[in-house]
Amino acid sequence: MARPRIRDWGVKIGHYPTGRYNAITDVKGVKVGHTTIIQGEGKLVPGRGPVRTGVTAIFPHSEDLFHHRVAAGAFTLNGAGEVSGLLQAEEWGVIETPILLTNTLSVGQVHDAVLDYLLKFYPEAGVSSDPIIPIVAECDDSHLNDIQGRHVTAKHVFLALENASSGPVAEGSVGGGTGMISFDFKSGIGTASRVLPRHKGGYTVGVLVMANFGPRRCLSIAGCPVGLSITDLMPDPHPDGSIVVIIATDAPLMSLQLRRLAKRAALGIARAGGYASHVSGEFCLAFSTGVITPRCSNSLTVELHLLRDQYLDPLFEATIEATEEAIINSLMQATDMCGRDGHVVYAIPLDRLYQTLRKQGLAH
Amino acid sequence: MARPRIRDWGVKIGHYPTGRYNAITDVKGVKVGHTTIIQGEGKLVPGRGPVRTGVTAIFPHSEDLFHHRVAAGAFTLNGAGEVSGLLQAEEWGVIETPILLTNTLSVGQVHDAVLDYLLKFYPEAGVSSDPIIPIVAECDDSHLNDIQGRHVTAKHVFLALENASSGPVAEGSVGGGTGMISFDFKSGIGTASRVLPRHKGGYTVGVLVMANFGPRRCLSIAGCPVGLSITDLMPDPHPDGSIVVIIATDAPLMSLQLRRLAKRAALGIARAGGYASHVSGEFCLAFSTGVITPRCSNSLTVELHLLRDQYLDPLFEATIEATEEAIINSLMQATDMCGRDGHVVYAIPLDRLYQTLRKQGLAH
Amino acid sequence: MARPRIRDWGVKIGHYPTGRYNAITDVKGVKVGHTTIIQGEGKLVPGRGPVRTGVTAIFPHSEDLFHHRVAAGAFTLNGAGEVSGLLQAEEWGVIETPILLTNTLSVGQVHDAVLDYLLKFYPEAGVSSDPIIPIVAECDDSHLNDIQGRHVTAKHVFLALENASSGPVAEGSVGGGTGMISFDFKSGIGTASRVLPRHKGGYTVGVLVMANFGPRRCLSIAGCPVGLSITDLMPDPHPDGSIVVIIATDAPLMSLQLRRLAKRAALGIARAGGYASHVSGEFCLAFSTGVITPRCSNSLTVELHLLRDQYLDPLFEATIEATEEAIINSLMQATDMCGRDGHVVYAIPLDRLYQTLRKQGLAH
Amino acid sequence: MARPRIRDWGVKIGHYPTGRYNAITDVKGVKVGHTTIIQGEGKLVPGRGPVRTGVTAIFPHSEDLFHHRVAAGAFTLNGAGEVSGLLQAEEWGVIETPILLTNTLSVGQVHDAVLDYLLKFYPEAGVSSDPIIPIVAECDDSHLNDIQGRHVTAKHVFLALENASSGPVAEGSVGGGTGMISFDFKSGIGTASRVLPRHKGGYTVGVLVMANFGPRRCLSIAGCPVGLSITDLMPDPHPDGSIVVIIATDAPLMSLQLRRLAKRAALGIARAGGYASHVSGEFCLAFSTGVITPRCSNSLTVELHLLRDQYLDPLFEATIEATEEAIINSLMQATDMCGRDGHVVYAIPLDRLYQTLRKQGLAH
Repeated sequence: MARPRIRDWGVKIGHYPTGRYNAITDVKGVKVGHTTIIQGEGKLVPGRGPVRTGVTAIFPHSEDLFHHRVAAGAFTLNGAGEVSGLLQAEEWGVIETPILLTNTLSVGQVHDAVLDYLLKFYPEAGVSSDPIIPIVAECDDSHLNDIQGRHVTAKHVFLALENASSGPVAEGSVGGGTGMISFDFKSGIGTASRVLPRHKGGYTVGVLVMANFGPRRCLSIAGCPVGLSITDLMPDPHPDGSIVVIIATDAPLMSLQLRRLAKRAALGIARAGGYASHVSGEFCLAFSTGVITPRCSNSLTVELHLLRDQYLDPLFEATIEATEEAIINSLMQATDMCGRDGHVVYAIPLDRLYQTLRKQGLAH
Repeated sequence: MARPRIRDWGVKIGHYPTGRYNAITDVKGVKVGHTTIIQGEGKLVPGRGPVRTGVTAIFPHSEDLFHHRVAAGAFTLNGAGEVSGLLQAEEWGVIETPILLTNTLSVGQVHDAVLDYLLKFYPEAGVSSDPIIPIVAECDDSHLNDIQGRHVTAKHVFLALENASSGPVAEGSVGGGTGMISFDFKSGIGTASRVLPRHKGGYTVGVLVMANFGPRRCLSIAGCPVGLSITDLMPDPHPDGSIVVIIATDAPLMSLQLRRLAKRAALGIARAGGYASHVSGEFCLAFSTGVITPRCSNSLTVELHLLRDQYLDPLFEATIEATEEAIINSLMQATDMCGRDGHVVYAIPLDRLYQTLRKQGLAH
Repeated sequence: MARPRIRDWGVKIGHYPTGRYNAITDVKGVKVGHTTIIQGEGKLVPGRGPVRTGVTAIFPHSEDLFHHRVAAGAFTLNGAGEVSGLLQAEEWGVIETPILLTNTLSVGQVHDAVLDYLLKFYPEAGVSSDPIIPIVAECDDSHLNDIQGRHVTAKHVFLALENASSGPVAEGSVGGGTGMISFDFKSGIGTASRVLPRHKGGYTVGVLVMANFGPRRCLSIAGCPVGLSITDLMPDPHPDGSIVVIIATDAPLMSLQLRRLAKRAALGIARAGGYASHVSGEFCLAFSTGVITPRCSNSLTVELHLLRDQYLDPLFEATIEATEEAIINSLMQATDMCGRDGHVVYAIPLDRLYQTLRKQGLAH
Repeated sequence: MARPRIRDWGVKIGHYPTGRYNAITDVKGVKVGHTTIIQGEGKLVPGRGPVRTGVTAIFPHSEDLFHHRVAAGAFTLNGAGEVSGLLQAEEWGVIETPILLTNTLSVGQVHDAVLDYLLKFYPEAGVSSDPIIPIVAECDDSHLNDIQGRHVTAKHVFLALENASSGPVAEGSVGGGTGMISFDFKSGIGTASRVLPRHKGGYTVGVLVMANFGPRRCLSIAGCPVGLSITDLMPDPHPDGSIVVIIATDAPLMSLQLRRLAKRAALGIARAGGYASHVSGEFCLAFSTGVITPRCSNSLTVELHLLRDQYLDPLFEATIEATEEAIINSLMQATDMCGRDGHVVYAIPLDRLYQTLRKQGLAH
């Protein structure tokens, strides 16, 4: 039976309504694809498994991204991790490739596989045109996964890219989030969205997280410290992880504004209980489908309609809200998982969670 | 009758115990002094009043600060404001002057007054030695105060500096916080501290905020959305403000580590409900009394004992907790104020707040 | 007799032609005003003199700047100094006040004086509208000037602001540069400009520096290490200073692009021989008169024509060239000065410099 | 016959003497290894060649780097490129893996190969300990190389790592620099070093560059605009590239200081004529073998002897000088190369260069 998302219980996080799917794909043009890789069980034999990992692909829009780049901005709350391509995205303020999410040790292979994929479409890249630098972000799934085995192959990356679609987004232990753990519960991919009222522009903000962070005691849902009330179902000790937050919006924002939006995602992490531990890679990357610039043009200038700064605040709030809800959804949608060496990570127990939230008047 | 602080009600914010005074001054050597300026009432006559402002002085340690500088690091969550001296503090990773907090338009005069004060002690500065660049941070108190009048004079600055002391710290509508408003309630100065257990180093983190930010609906105390339940007692519409967070610790941290600590204060702002609005200057500045370096020395090197990064996490959590609690204390301790043009800003109503928190099981 | 500028000798720095005045004012709308304060001589009596200081005011455009803000971006090569207002300019990517240049200890008073000036025009600021945070940058002129005396009063600031004009810009020991020293020669204010050819947009880049940096041995003019060939005429030992670089352009650049332009000014400092010493405040601030946004508007969006990134390179080169030439002009135009305590700083000796450059085939 | 290095002609760049090898390996413990891959000729067939590429490996010290990490700091002059692992190096202020230099499209495969290599030594990584994030930097060699073919395999990476050695460093068209072009001449790897006098600490600064940047007209050697005097021998038009600068020192510097050192490398790029074009990835990464911290320890604190800031300036100058000289050496040591599609890139003509420099009195 399908697990609920937090909003299905009537728990409201923040003020703004969600989009149709309450997902990053509510921003028109955004597509998401997952490849989930689950193989074997038992004792870890590096290179052989067990495998509990995957890869998630996000297309900022549906057209020719390399030639029609979206404006982008980023914020690193804690840089203990890797996002290939981030330096260039920040320098130029644009994204020109899909965004991939995977495990820490697979960044190199996924990076290379994205090239395989893109070079088919852009045979001129690195011949008569610039080379390509893909964006690949990671979290550490090594508590459940044979991470040394680097089991995410080109085939898996292609699948994620080719199957990427708009509409509802699978959450929990899927794609790059397959082996992820948050607040000592099973987590993974989560998503949420917000829609501003028409007089504030009617814009949509969609967030997708790969969540792999936080100790149990810190978990907070809509302000309720549920991590303090559910103290059992603990996994074996494991290193604290990371979180990658991808923020999409159709609000016409330039890079400096998007960097500010990305900073607000960090506040959403805080609301869910994150404190950005020393070893956690907490990266927030925002893009706008409302500001697309061509790679090449003979025109010296480009004409843009940009949101005026004085109307940014609702987008800031929407970003915080959607980030918090996406994190909670990544917990709600994940299920128990037994990984390498028999490591078990439990899903958050829905019945007890519901009782706790209901007692606080948060769930209906 | 003295208003309580949030902890007096048994409300616990976070995990760690507080220091003796639950104040920034729990970090040994830190001193705080306030000058509060309240004069006149009625219609605003720029230059004449009414005056609802002041200045707060913080000494990072009690010795000769210019020659024995504390390590420092900063994070700007939203830079819509001013902290004079911050650029140099970030470049060198040290603080060498007291830190002053005041209103936006008084930064220049307070800056100048601090020079008056320091040049008496360092007559060589700008003659045979480097000049001095004071640290002066601001928030906008113009809804209550004749801010154009720039009523903070050198006399007021000297008083704050000379009366700075260790021990308990006055909170609410005092010093630089005199005319400040947060979540549409009267706020101002707040402080809190945390002490780590011995096996984590036994270090103290103390935070002092000048809080002037946030719309009512966002106020959250220990996760409880009290801003949604107290919807009356609203002031006239006014611009959103800012928050300055000063973090002190005796943990021996170098500048890079302190910058990371300062970043966590932003997460504390988020927990209290802040979203860092476009016009809000949200500055976090951290220093360590555990790393003091001499201004001049014939020795090429300095020997430092620094906390190893793997032990940073408790300090990160302590910073978030103390920041959140300091913000709430700034509200708890402030009282109703009527300022320029009859603008009234109400203190948070303690009885109703208590009932709300008690119903949620947060207050005893 | 008027001293020449470096270009008067046929020395070419870089590739692009200059604008009409070879000055920042070649960017249409930019105005510059200086107040030079030279009083007394002999032994330093702090507060009494001798005075060798001043203030320079730059208006990014001629209209109502507070309501029609120019896009801006900044780069700090070495942050050992102060630029009030820089944090906000970087956050918002705009400048909304004139830019003032003065000595280190006068920042507070000049800041306050700019408020006096602006509040006359904007009586609503801090009453029914946002307060104002002026931009005031500094270098240390204490080797020649009674810097503790803080002799730049409101009167001087008003004069600089009111007399600001387009057209030729006075250079050398004038305005904020009155007491400045570079490469152990007298320097101060310098300016230069470049104009791109029509097919690259025909844009103008104008630079103004307040130069106060560098040891003799490092001075390089158009690649010629003249600092190594003129080893006499040395002043008494004094601390290394700073440099503030203001870059104006009419190219329609947004903040991220302007930050990148400001970074290139640092490369111009390097070409002249600067290495950005530990105690040097090296700040580069760029603005575009081609991107002006209104403070307030009922429209959600603003329509901008922005230069496409692929056409930035000529502007990068122009910025480097103009910065290098402005620095050299600040030396060429300054004259010998005797300041406090009989400190003498010599102008660069024109005849010897000319011979040196001619021998290298650089001067005609 | 061996081509000279610039210093062999008596050309002096800057003030300080070089180390024994005038190479990054003059910093004790640093090792460098190259694998150069040159295969095929004629028409480009993507995936088949011709191949003109390679990989360079730098070990910051000779011991167990993953467990004994060097302090590090970085500066990005222009971020149009990729340095995997840089985000983490900047967050933590340490480097814990070797540094690899290769072509743009090989970053993923090299990244993965470094993991292969390191996991043999650290089988616990990603099992009972943290995963590893390698540092891999790139420039675009696509004008000469079949970059789409990604011909740098694990075997090549292992060779570079295993053959890394102290002592003299091969320069020019070797390793990662095999297919690189600077100032429209063949370039590649270059290195240089400086040694401070004993009273300034006697420290060594070593720099290694992979240089792939700049148009001909900008080339400057020791201030002499040689790019303007050698206008023939031009390659076909090709995109501007990038430069990666690795700075090693035994001066005991912490991360903040190393970031400042890295900034000065950008000034060295400027001295050689670089202007950091829009598409150029200009990354500077500095580390100190004088500050090594253990990965894990039971001790809360670490005792460090750090250079005091007031003694940084000679290191700043040494960094600029060595960067400039390393760039010039990368040109001096490279030889003519014919690559894919018959693209020819000429080495700088030594006889004409010598005459030019001699006429200016720069060469003996």
